[in-house]
Amino acid sequence: MISQTPDPPYYAVIFTSLRTEGDNGYAEMAARMIDLASQQEGFLGVESARNEVGITVSYWCDLKSIHNWRENFDHSIARKKGRKEWYQTFKVRIAKVESDYVFESK
Amino acid sequence: MISQTPDPPYYAVIFTSLRTEGDNGYAEMAARMIDLASQQEGFLGVESARNEVGITVSYWCDLKSIHNWRENFDHSIARKKGRKEWYQTFKVRIAKVESDYVFESK
Repeated sequence: MISQTPDPPYYAVIFTSLRTEGDNGYAEMAARMIDLASQQEGFLGVESARNEVGITVSYWCDLKSIHNWRENFDHSIARKKGRKEWYQTFKVRIAKVESDYVFESK
Repeated sequence: MISQTPDPPYYAVIFTSLRTEGDNGYAEMAARMIDLASQQEGFLGVESARNEVGITVSYWCDLKSIHNWRENFDHSIARKKGRKEWYQTFKVRIAKVESDYVFESK
């Protein structure tokens, strides 16, 4: 789904990745992490899609919320496993959303 | 592929969309627009994936480049067609990338 974020400014974490072969528990952990992230203070939404490359964009009200989520204990374990098993490579970009607009067909 | 962007700051345009049914010339135009965008001044890269939701993140060196791409004649025609035929709904977010980091498995 497209996240219903508030008016800017807010923050986006753009996570782009190439996976390793096989699931290796990834899908279950990914779902758990989205569930857990959505319970964090300052979480505004998440959008995710994967073909050759996977893109997950999560939205946060400020940098502090992003920092706290990064330090979350269960998330730290998942991130460690990600480096060891699930990802060939990934890139994380932290970006301040300055403007946005929406189109809805009638 | 994961875009090889330069050190921040630079800009990201996060385009999240839900498509209409059927292709209706979309795939061809999407490929053409990526090709055309990549020839614009200030273009830094693009990442794209689609499942239920489609996410395309394009990277630009500054807001002026984004503005110029938006005003590009062929792109304007494609955007018009997008509203009329290809998208149920979309959201565009313009964000300034403040920091990034990369992981590469050995």
